[in-house]
Amino acid sequence: MSNPSLVSRDSRGWSLPGIANLHSHAFQRAMAGLAERQTDPNDSFWTWRETMYAMAGRFTPELLHAVASQLYAEMLEAGYTSVCEFHYLHHAPDGNACTPPSAMSDALIAAARDTGIRLTLLPVLYMTGGFDGRPLSERQRRFGHGVEAYLRLFEALRAKEGETLRIGCAFHSLRAVPPEAMRAVLAAVPADTRLHIHVAEQMAEVRECMEARGARPVQWLLDNTDLDPRWTLVHATHLDDAEVRGIARSGATVALCPTTEANLGDGLFPLRTYLAAGGRWGIGSDSHVSVSPVEELRWLEYGQRLVQQRRNVAASVAVPSVAATLLGDVHASAADSTGFNEVDTIVLDADHPLLAGAIAADVADRWVFAGNRPLVRDVEVAGVRVVEDGHHRDREAIASRYREAMKILLA
Amino acid sequence: MSNPSLVSRDSRGWSLPGIANLHSHAFQRAMAGLAERQTDPNDSFWTWRETMYAMAGRFTPELLHAVASQLYAEMLEAGYTSVCEFHYLHHAPDGNACTPPSAMSDALIAAARDTGIRLTLLPVLYMTGGFDGRPLSERQRRFGHGVEAYLRLFEALRAKEGETLRIGCAFHSLRAVPPEAMRAVLAAVPADTRLHIHVAEQMAEVRECMEARGARPVQWLLDNTDLDPRWTLVHATHLDDAEVRGIARSGATVALCPTTEANLGDGLFPLRTYLAAGGRWGIGSDSHVSVSPVEELRWLEYGQRLVQQRRNVAASVAVPSVAATLLGDVHASAADSTGFNEVDTIVLDADHPLLAGAIAADVADRWVFAGNRPLVRDVEVAGVRVVEDGHHRDREAIASRYREAMKILLA
Repeated sequence: MSNPSLVSRDSRGWSLPGIANLHSHAFQRAMAGLAERQTDPNDSFWTWRETMYAMAGRFTPELLHAVASQLYAEMLEAGYTSVCEFHYLHHAPDGNACTPPSAMSDALIAAARDTGIRLTLLPVLYMTGGFDGRPLSERQRRFGHGVEAYLRLFEALRAKEGETLRIGCAFHSLRAVPPEAMRAVLAAVPADTRLHIHVAEQMAEVRECMEARGARPVQWLLDNTDLDPRWTLVHATHLDDAEVRGIARSGATVALCPTTEANLGDGLFPLRTYLAAGGRWGIGSDSHVSVSPVEELRWLEYGQRLVQQRRNVAASVAVPSVAATLLGDVHASAADSTGFNEVDTIVLDADHPLLAGAIAADVADRWVFAGNRPLVRDVEVAGVRVVEDGHHRDREAIASRYREAMKILLA
Repeated sequence: MSNPSLVSRDSRGWSLPGIANLHSHAFQRAMAGLAERQTDPNDSFWTWRETMYAMAGRFTPELLHAVASQLYAEMLEAGYTSVCEFHYLHHAPDGNACTPPSAMSDALIAAARDTGIRLTLLPVLYMTGGFDGRPLSERQRRFGHGVEAYLRLFEALRAKEGETLRIGCAFHSLRAVPPEAMRAVLAAVPADTRLHIHVAEQMAEVRECMEARGARPVQWLLDNTDLDPRWTLVHATHLDDAEVRGIARSGATVALCPTTEANLGDGLFPLRTYLAAGGRWGIGSDSHVSVSPVEELRWLEYGQRLVQQRRNVAASVAVPSVAATLLGDVHASAADSTGFNEVDTIVLDADHPLLAGAIAADVADRWVFAGNRPLVRDVEVAGVRVVEDGHHRDREAIASRYREAMKILLA
């Protein structure tokens, strides 16, 4: 918040702009806390992915609606007012299309509408099981589309856009989308479409991309697409210096997901050099092991402090407050990544002991860097108050349906 | 929790043993969130320490009671049922003794008694401003004692021990306590006294110790004291392999403070090699930027995952659950570090969506590795229920006195 007027005092507490959540796989909320067991002495992202596929195989549109509603209510209570849903759970468990083919997408749209969060729905193009172009595995089959079927889904969803719904376009990853398919989709979608892609999350992916395409993944994107502010690169954990400068110059946004990247052992994004290059970024809760902008921002900064053995990394002479710097950057990239230009309001509880004696200049640091208690009191999205005194307006009914859904998912 | 019966279901929810908080500086709770501003492009532990000294200079016994009461109520609500208070704020701001000399200690004892937490009070011996034996600086003067005055305070406090109060002995650090003074105190205190010391938190300290004493700090302790289960080494961040094995063999406990160590940019403890060596450890909230065993344990594990780029580091074939391993280790060291053999009970809210469909075997992982909501419903200490439905019995009155204290401290 280089503009200090972004924090202001009103009669209900301290007001701040709501936070955009740039990366979500809603169904993964149902497995939070269930994959922290050693299944193999070399547990990694890739063993975790098998657990995730098994859970994904159980979802129907009804179950997805129940889980996403719980998740979106939790997001609103935590201070997120919009979410980019990176959605690849398109088909029935056997791989056949749902009726209608957008049924799983429709469940997410309904969950967002029912809870009152802004949704940027990103149907994901997922075609191959690896850089070699091998077909999807049995467990990946319900994620897949050809280009034409994908564009039909994209158009069907675009027709549903409204005040709190935007449709963007996502490529799962370079390993899942052949270059010619990516080119065909980019040529077909409207010029202002938001474009999201998973990239460079794991070192194995970087190595495979260099072998298959002769370049590191982000370098390949820089060389083969017109990276610009319409693009959001998710994770971008493993970068060399040229890639850091290349993303920063392009105006693309990096969606950092610190709690998921820590949970999965991905590694640490080179934040300090990226900020020095003027790079743009935001946060996402991704796998939802945590649903809190506070934990994402706090541990993004702490990760840097731990490896560099210094303090206050994301701060400068111009904006000495670390949290104000972080929140300012998050707000600056939100519209380009989500497609929403409107800014919603969240109100922090000024009576909470964590804010005792606060002044406007220290509210951000106190929120992000002190304690563990929920401080968000009220949330308004598109003029509607959806959270009051810390409670989502339908918290109990949503939780009740979520418990029923979990019985089926865990049966 | 290698013993799975440590988690059990009762009518109010999921019961677990309460958590011991092995390291606390209560007064620092008042500065949580207030030092996250860049004061210098090379901000470090040492610039943070200057901010901390300025805050310390304002505390009276009354203000310390108000701040410690707020902190201890927060600890109980978070699931901590005992706290080791590493207390060096002994004298009046001008360096003269209080009346009585134990007035500041008495304020902590009263705060623990009033809130109902078990307290292991560790009056700290703090004598010199560095390894060269220079006198304390003006801002450190209120921390200091000669050996005789220190032992008088220790004996006066020992006379106050009771069911929920233990008195141990702490050395601030090797740089603040000359070897002969440490030997004199160790010879004078009863043989079962718990002994705590800050050690190897910062690389600067390691380098200075090697110059002044010809050994790394932990190696010096291994060579010059009888390290054994009475000892708790706080931080021990910077260790070589011989030191890792030496601590593990000694039976001493390491008090890890992951949130403070991240906030201060200390670095990462070599947890994986230490666990492989059979080392004992617990957690502390230290500077209280966070008051949550969940955040300490989660990010202790995540720090390892991030640097090793793998998952589920603190787990094994014998105990596959990461959180059960972590909680089991924490419980196993608690009595030796705190002096309390009794185990208190905390109850997690079984109706919370984060525990939907939980079974005894996954409760620990769900608590530690999912979400950000307080799940502790009830807490009993020494047979008294001090937290019910998530609220400390005196939450509002304590918060009100804390707000008044903060007005004075921030004036």
